[in-house]
Amino acid sequence: MAETKTMEGRLTGAVIEQFRQIVGDAHILLDAEHKEDYGHDKTEDYFFAPDVVLKPGTPQEISQILKICSAHEIPVTPRGAGTGLSGGALPVKNGVVLSMERFNKILNIDELNLQATVEPGVITEVFQNAVKEKGLFYPPDPASRGSCFLGGNLANNSGGPKAVKYGVTRDYVLNMEVVLPTGEIIWTAANVLKNSTGYNLTQLMCGSEGTLGVITKIVFKLRGYPQKNVLMMIPFVSNEEACEAIAAIFVAGIQPSGMEFFEKEAAAKTFEYCEKVLNSPVTTKLADGMNAYLLCELDGNDEDVLMKDAERVMEVLERFNTGEALFAESFAQKEELWKIRKNISPAVNWYTLTKSDDVVVPRGNLPKLIKGIKEIGKEYGFNTVCFGHLGDGNLHVNILKENIPDVDWETKIPEGIGEIFKLTVSLGGTLSGEHGIGIAKRPYMSIAMGEVNLNLMRGIKKVFDPKGILNPGKIF
Amino acid sequence: MAETKTMEGRLTGAVIEQFRQIVGDAHILLDAEHKEDYGHDKTEDYFFAPDVVLKPGTPQEISQILKICSAHEIPVTPRGAGTGLSGGALPVKNGVVLSMERFNKILNIDELNLQATVEPGVITEVFQNAVKEKGLFYPPDPASRGSCFLGGNLANNSGGPKAVKYGVTRDYVLNMEVVLPTGEIIWTAANVLKNSTGYNLTQLMCGSEGTLGVITKIVFKLRGYPQKNVLMMIPFVSNEEACEAIAAIFVAGIQPSGMEFFEKEAAAKTFEYCEKVLNSPVTTKLADGMNAYLLCELDGNDEDVLMKDAERVMEVLERFNTGEALFAESFAQKEELWKIRKNISPAVNWYTLTKSDDVVVPRGNLPKLIKGIKEIGKEYGFNTVCFGHLGDGNLHVNILKENIPDVDWETKIPEGIGEIFKLTVSLGGTLSGEHGIGIAKRPYMSIAMGEVNLNLMRGIKKVFDPKGILNPGKIF
Repeated sequence: MAETKTMEGRLTGAVIEQFRQIVGDAHILLDAEHKEDYGHDKTEDYFFAPDVVLKPGTPQEISQILKICSAHEIPVTPRGAGTGLSGGALPVKNGVVLSMERFNKILNIDELNLQATVEPGVITEVFQNAVKEKGLFYPPDPASRGSCFLGGNLANNSGGPKAVKYGVTRDYVLNMEVVLPTGEIIWTAANVLKNSTGYNLTQLMCGSEGTLGVITKIVFKLRGYPQKNVLMMIPFVSNEEACEAIAAIFVAGIQPSGMEFFEKEAAAKTFEYCEKVLNSPVTTKLADGMNAYLLCELDGNDEDVLMKDAERVMEVLERFNTGEALFAESFAQKEELWKIRKNISPAVNWYTLTKSDDVVVPRGNLPKLIKGIKEIGKEYGFNTVCFGHLGDGNLHVNILKENIPDVDWETKIPEGIGEIFKLTVSLGGTLSGEHGIGIAKRPYMSIAMGEVNLNLMRGIKKVFDPKGILNPGKIF
Repeated sequence: MAETKTMEGRLTGAVIEQFRQIVGDAHILLDAEHKEDYGHDKTEDYFFAPDVVLKPGTPQEISQILKICSAHEIPVTPRGAGTGLSGGALPVKNGVVLSMERFNKILNIDELNLQATVEPGVITEVFQNAVKEKGLFYPPDPASRGSCFLGGNLANNSGGPKAVKYGVTRDYVLNMEVVLPTGEIIWTAANVLKNSTGYNLTQLMCGSEGTLGVITKIVFKLRGYPQKNVLMMIPFVSNEEACEAIAAIFVAGIQPSGMEFFEKEAAAKTFEYCEKVLNSPVTTKLADGMNAYLLCELDGNDEDVLMKDAERVMEVLERFNTGEALFAESFAQKEELWKIRKNISPAVNWYTLTKSDDVVVPRGNLPKLIKGIKEIGKEYGFNTVCFGHLGDGNLHVNILKENIPDVDWETKIPEGIGEIFKLTVSLGGTLSGEHGIGIAKRPYMSIAMGEVNLNLMRGIKKVFDPKGILNPGKIF
């Protein structure tokens, strides 16, 4: 066997042979094609080649791998489904990519306690459907739910449209089994709804982007599945008014189960994408003269209450310049409206290369945020498509490459992104609501927090990972 | 001035003088009476005398104090209202007690964003009432809400009866200002509903019992205040059946806003206490032959829906041996039922000295837990009064001293408590649901978690507090 070396020069043939013994021939990948596959995620056009891809099958195998990597200081990058939008799963220092794809079992759905125990390689939608069959509800719902893994959701603390009412991934995790970089296997907590027993390691792991440990089992709490919902699409004359209306709906005491925003441009791209790429044209017509849209969903178990709440939403909207609201009458029509929203990101990325941001501010500051982003775009010469989970203040901003020269894309545009982040922070917000920092936003972390905070995080990292082998080069 | 020395021997007259300069004459307490006051909390009859009590007024004063204490390695114990039930605010290594009582301002209630910024010395009920006046709801509701501080609630991640539907303190904190033991002042996050920007320092601080930093400002999220509620009290023939009924109600898809349990003995003591001590007798009559009671509250904004849900609860209860359920008809009657529940702890502690536990298990395991606790009591020779937030699996167990000899109280009974904790952990639970570990449960931490977990926590502690000055001797 040829010697295979990382940048650190320690990934020798002997080490590769140890890995092969641990995971078995079928689960070690060294060929260029696989390295190519496992070197990408869904972030821009980033690529970093691993030296080797390992697909372990048990926590014990991961423990053995991490012990070897600790001994030799070999970088290890845990990887879910590779759907991340911040480069968090990319092996920027080469070394080992630890693919969790074989951890794909739902181990237990405990209907008595409304809990489930799963492995991290379960696809989010598979899990959602499995619990729904038992009348139960797992609300976190990232747009990539048809392919992303629950472990990746945990690593990034994913959200999605239901978060506005039901919370994000961190609100559903009770306990997890984790292999530490030093090879020890721990449970972070207990399978309980309330816990004041020492520091909350569960919450510390959640959102740590694979830098503190490798999650191998997860205990989630579940809810009863809401039986009914109402979905309406409301067109607005301006982005700002749509944002003001969002805050007003919450101030009126209404708690939507979805409050999604998209600009006209996002809708236009999606319509084109659905027709030309998906061969599934959108049949809903958009009114003339409207520039922004809200999708407002209400859910619950009582139709009358939902209709009353929908009426209250309409009353609030009377104060704004809106077009006629479209009520989805049927399941099919609801699906059609969600199809528009959920294809925005694929559509925009089909249209052109993008840099994708995921900023979050207090709801009331959304009008200023969107207005400011458009002004920054003008100054730095880029167009943006804005959409996202505005009910909880979380705006996705896709910056379009279009005809921007490569050199500007790599230098001038990142400066503009820095301005967007500065604006966000000045409005009480921060860099990422649900996509994580990874490598894409790492250069901007000092905008969100000072060196004291970053040093606390670095210190925590060192407690868990003294050799710094796990997902190096991420977050800070 | 006489030299005042801690066990470490560093709290000299010169240091005292520096403290006096920082906080002013009115806010430094050195007399025996005050030391007595600030050396107790509500945990059993524990007492530890501080060398000095400081009442700073600003984060900057705290920063100066902590810098001095760091330099001289003087222990500092932050203290809220002293209502804790695990000894977390007691200065077990003497030194400085840092009373947060002057941090008593609600700085801002932001009705547009449904957020509030408060200081940690605000009494929980004062805050609840202030937001309620604006139609808003802050659900965490510890029994001591009339006197406890929000900062203490955060330190222990307090819960209360509403937690079963609305979550605990950690579910409402978005951001906090913290003075680190080294004197730096940071904000842990941003004022946003979703955040995937680095490790979650907010969640790490919450529940850390004043060992990582001194909280000086808190940003909470708020909800709309639910307009209506229904409250019923259901008597059961046995504790076990009451616990089984709780799980069955949740399995039926009903989400109560309160699901409280108490045994007959708890009710009896409370009735006596209300009559003899509060001079406010309970007028509700308890049926004969019943041994356990559930208080089940449903809340929302629609009376019809609540009545339908109440009917569904009654349908579930038909499967169990219950007495006749009592529906509280009026506000006064609801207050009366809550009076029973909320006076259990004061009543039992008036009756006899107690050791108070706060175990938590998955709901479905409650019947086994209570049965096991009674058996352990028999074996070790103690009586218990059991009550608590059983909707989320959180049982308060008050162990009664009664005629137990002091020597047994200090040696044999703690062994029995260890057995309760072992049983709890064997049922998938853990030591504390909402009271924290402090010193009372510290000796038992190894039952809940292994050395690897404890060492991670110790490592985190060291990152925040390299000199180990802040609330030493707690948790682990």
